[in-house]
Amino acid sequence: MAEHRDHTYKIIELVGSSPDGVDQAIRNAIERAGETLKNLDWFEVREIRGPIQNGEIGWFQVKLGVGFRILDPADLEND
Amino acid sequence: MAEHRDHTYKIIELVGSSPDGVDQAIRNAIERAGETLKNLDWFEVREIRGPIQNGEIGWFQVKLGVGFRILDPADLEND
Amino acid sequence: MAEHRDHTYKIIELVGSSPDGVDQAIRNAIERAGETLKNLDWFEVREIRGPIQNGEIGWFQVKLGVGFRILDPADLEND
Amino acid sequence: MAEHRDHTYKIIELVGSSPDGVDQAIRNAIERAGETLKNLDWFEVREIRGPIQNGEIGWFQVKLGVGFRILDPADLEND
Amino acid sequence: MAEHRDHTYKIIELVGSSPDGVDQAIRNAIERAGETLKNLDWFEVREIRGPIQNGEIGWFQVKLGVGFRILDPADLEND
Amino acid sequence: MAEHRDHTYKIIELVGSSPDGVDQAIRNAIERAGETLKNLDWFEVREIRGPIQNGEIGWFQVKLGVGFRILDPADLEND
Amino acid sequence: MAEHRDHTYKIIELVGSSPDGVDQAIRNAIERAGETLKNLDWFEVREIRGPIQNGEIGWFQVKLGVGFRILDPADLEND
Amino acid sequence: MAEHRDHTYKIIELVGSSPDGVDQAIRNAIERAGETLKNLDWFEVREIRGPIQNGEIGWFQVKLGVGFRILDPADLEND
Amino acid sequence: MAEHRDHTYKIIELVGSSPDGVDQAIRNAIERAGETLKNLDWFEVREIRGPIQNGEIGWFQVKLGVGFRILDPADLEND
Amino acid sequence: MAEHRDHTYKIIELVGSSPDGVDQAIRNAIERAGETLKNLDWFEVREIRGPIQNGEIGWFQVKLGVGFRILDPADLEND
Amino acid sequence: MAEHRDHTYKIIELVGSSPDGVDQAIRNAIERAGETLKNLDWFEVREIRGPIQNGEIGWFQVKLGVGFRILDPADLEND
Amino acid sequence: MAEHRDHTYKIIELVGSSPDGVDQAIRNAIERAGETLKNLDWFEVREIRGPIQNGEIGWFQVKLGVGFRILDPADLEND
Repeated sequence: MAEHRDHTYKIIELVGSSPDGVDQAIRNAIERAGETLKNLDWFEVREIRGPIQNGEIGWFQVKLGVGFRILDPADLEND
Repeated sequence: MAEHRDHTYKIIELVGSSPDGVDQAIRNAIERAGETLKNLDWFEVREIRGPIQNGEIGWFQVKLGVGFRILDPADLEND
Repeated sequence: MAEHRDHTYKIIELVGSSPDGVDQAIRNAIERAGETLKNLDWFEVREIRGPIQNGEIGWFQVKLGVGFRILDPADLEND
Repeated sequence: MAEHRDHTYKIIELVGSSPDGVDQAIRNAIERAGETLKNLDWFEVREIRGPIQNGEIGWFQVKLGVGFRILDPADLEND
Repeated sequence: MAEHRDHTYKIIELVGSSPDGVDQAIRNAIERAGETLKNLDWFEVREIRGPIQNGEIGWFQVKLGVGFRILDPADLEND
Repeated sequence: MAEHRDHTYKIIELVGSSPDGVDQAIRNAIERAGETLKNLDWFEVREIRGPIQNGEIGWFQVKLGVGFRILDPADLEND
Repeated sequence: MAEHRDHTYKIIELVGSSPDGVDQAIRNAIERAGETLKNLDWFEVREIRGPIQNGEIGWFQVKLGVGFRILDPADLEND
Repeated sequence: MAEHRDHTYKIIELVGSSPDGVDQAIRNAIERAGETLKNLDWFEVREIRGPIQNGEIGWFQVKLGVGFRILDPADLEND
Repeated sequence: MAEHRDHTYKIIELVGSSPDGVDQAIRNAIERAGETLKNLDWFEVREIRGPIQNGEIGWFQVKLGVGFRILDPADLEND
Repeated sequence: MAEHRDHTYKIIELVGSSPDGVDQAIRNAIERAGETLKNLDWFEVREIRGPIQNGEIGWFQVKLGVGFRILDPADLEND
Repeated sequence: MAEHRDHTYKIIELVGSSPDGVDQAIRNAIERAGETLKNLDWFEVREIRGPIQNGEIGWFQVKLGVGFRILDPADLEND
Repeated sequence: MAEHRDHTYKIIELVGSSPDGVDQAIRNAIERAGETLKNLDWFEVREIRGPIQNGEIGWFQVKLGVGFRILDPADLEND
C-alpha cells in the first residue's frame, strides 16, 4: 500500500501570461509554480484568452492544470 | 521577465451557499476567500445546485473558480 | 450570517491511483486527503485514465474533485 | 441490501419560470414539484434562458434536474 | 402566482427511430408522446446514432428532450 | 408504421448508490428500476460522485440514464 | 416559402453587467440591445463571471446569446 | 501580409426554420444569409430543436454558425 | 473468457458527404466503410457542417464514429 | 444606470489565419478587427484547426471570440 | 529531429466489454489491443454504458482511447 | 454516386510532441502522418498538455484529429 500512496497527485489551476505567445505563457506559469513546488509532473491547457489594449494583444493568458506528486502529507498543504 | 512574473494567477475552486439566492451565494464565497487572500481578481461560475428540505430550497450552492494574482512565492502556498 | 459562513466549501483536485481498479483509486485519493484535511464532504469523478506497461494496465488513475467545509480562515490555506 | 434500496434516486427535468429572476424561477419549479412528490432531495441548474417580449424579458426560464429518493416501487412511477 | 404555476414545464427524454432518416425519427417520437401527453411544447435533439445491419443503417435513432406544460398536479405524474 | 412505434424508447435518469463501488451502484439502480419497468434496454453513465463521512467514502453514487422500450401508451406513463 | 423566410433568426453574443446581480446584468444587456434592434425574441445564458475589486464583486457579468427575427435583408446587417 | 489579411473569416450565428426537416432548415438560413453576404464559406450545426403545436412539429429549427471571408474592412460591419 | 474477446469493438471516425442532406451523408459514409469492413455495428453522429459555394450548400458533411466488432486480431489492423 | 450602460460588451466570432502558427493567427484576426472596431477588449480561443496541403500545414486557423465595449447604440450595429 | 519523431503517438478508440464490471471491461480491451500492437502507452475512458437483458446488466461496455507510440512508418498503418 | 464516394474522409487521432512549442508539435505529427498517408486534408486540435521534468516543460503534446480523403477501399485500411 505504501507505494500507492506515492502515486497520489494534486492538480492546481494557474493562469500564465506572456506578451510573446501561448508557449511562453505556459512556460511562465510552470516556472512560477516550480519555485515553490518541487515535484511538478505535467500540465494540461484548459483555456486560452487575453486582454486587448489599443488594438493589440496585451497578454496571452493560458489557464492550466498543473499536476504534482504528493510525497508526504505536508505536500498536500503546499501549492 | 520580472514583470511577467507578476502576471501569474492561481484559481481556487469554492462553493458558496446562501438561502437567499444565487447572487448572495457568490458574495458569501468571495467574502470568505477575501479573509485570507488579498489579491482576489475575478470569479467564474461553474455550477449552480442545492439541497431541498421539506419541499423548500435549503441553500443555493454555487461552485466558483476564484482567481487571484500571485505576487510572491509564498502566495502560491496560500489558498 | 455566521451560519452561512460555515457553508463555504473548497474543492481540491486530486488524482488517485491503484493497480486494482477505479474504486480503489478513488479510495486511495480520499485516504491521502484525509490525513491532512478533517472535514472532507464529497468527491466527484472528472477523468479516468492510466498508463499501460508491457501490455498491461499499470495504474488506474482517477481525477477527482474533493470538497470540504471551511470552518475557519486557516482552513482556507490548508489543502 | 435493504438499506441500499433506499438510496436510489430519480431525477426529473423541469423548467421553472418567473418574471422576477433566476432565483424565483427555481423556487417556482421546486414548489410545483413538491405538490406531488414528497421526497425532493436536491436540484441542479442545467440551462438559463427566456423569451423577450416588446424588448423586455418576459420570463426567466431555468431548466433544472430535481432529484428525489425512491422509497418504494410506486414512487418510481410518480414524477 | 397562479399564472406562474402554469409556466412550469417537464422534459422527458425519448429516443425516436426510423429507417427513413433523422426527421422521421423525430416525428415518430413526437407522435408517440402525443398519444398520452396533450401539452407538448418543444423538442431538443441530444444525440443521433443508430445500428448498422448487414452493412446498412437499420434505424436512425434520435435522442430528444420533449417539453410540455404542466397544467395541474396530475400532469406531473404523467409522462 | 406499426413496427416503428415499437422502437420508441424512454430514458429515465436515476442515481444508484453502493458503499462497495461503482459497479454495484449501477447494479442497484438497475435492480430497483426493474421492479417496476419490464423492458429495460440499456444504461449510460452520466456522473460518478459520492459523500465522504469521517474521512471514508460513504456511498459511490452513479447517475445513469436508463432506457426502455415503450410498448403501449400506458408504458409512457410508467417510469 | 415566403413565410419560412420570416422565421430566420440571428443570434448576437453580448455581455451584460451589473453590480446588483445576475438578473439585472441580463436585463441591462437586453435593454441595451433593444435600443437598436426591434425584434428581440429570446436570450440564453452562456457564462457568468465578474471582476473582484478590493475583495468585493465589482460587476456580475453575464454572457448571453440574444436572438431576434430577421424581417428583411437590412435586418441582417443590424446588430 | 496582405494575403493573410484575406484569410480572416467572420462567423455569424443564425437559426433557420422549416416545417419540412433539418436539411431544409439549414438551406433556408443559408439562402437568407446569401441575400446580404456574398462570400459565404461554410456552416456548422450547433443545435437542433423546434416547437410542437397540436402534437405535431411546427418547425425544425437549426442553430448554425455561418462563416464568410472578410475581403475589406466594410465587410466586417456587414452581417 | 473467449466469449468476452468477441465483444471488443473498434470505432473509426469518418466524414460522409452528400449534396442531398444529412441522412444521405451518413449513408454514404456507412456504404464506403462497408466495402472494407464486414462487421459494422453502429454509428454515432459527432458533427454536422459543410462548405457553401456560390451561396448554396455544396455538401452536407457529417462526422461519424462507426463501431465494428473485432473478431480476430487481424481485424484490429483493418479499418 | 448610465454607467452600467457603458459596461455592455458585444462578442463577435472571427477565424484568424497564419502559416506561421497559432500566435500569429490570433494576432492577424485582432489586427483585422481593429481596423473597424475601436474598443476591442479581450479575445478567447474557441478552436484551432487548419488545412493541410501537400503534406504540410497550409494555415493555422484559430476561431476566436473578440469582445468590445459598446459605447453608444451605433456601436451595436458595428462589427 | 529524429528523437521527436519517436514521440508521435496514435490513439485508437475501442469498446471493451465484461459482465463483471468497469475495471474488467477496460482490461479486456487493453488485452485485445495488446495482441496486435506492441507499444501501448496509456488509455483514457470516454464513455461507460451497457445493455440490460431480463432486468440485469448484460455487459459493462467502456469506450476507451488507447494511445501507442509510433516507432516506424509501418506502425502508422497498424492499429 | 461515384463522385460522392470520393468525398468520404477518415480522421485518425495523433499526438504530436515537441520541446519547442505547440506549433512545432502539430507540425511533427503532420509530418509523421504524411510519410504514410498521401491525402492529408486538415487537422483539428483536441488537447494540449505535456510532461514537466525538473521543473521544465519536457514536451508540448498536442492531440490532433487528422483528416484525409479516402480515394479507394485500400485507403480505408491505411492509417
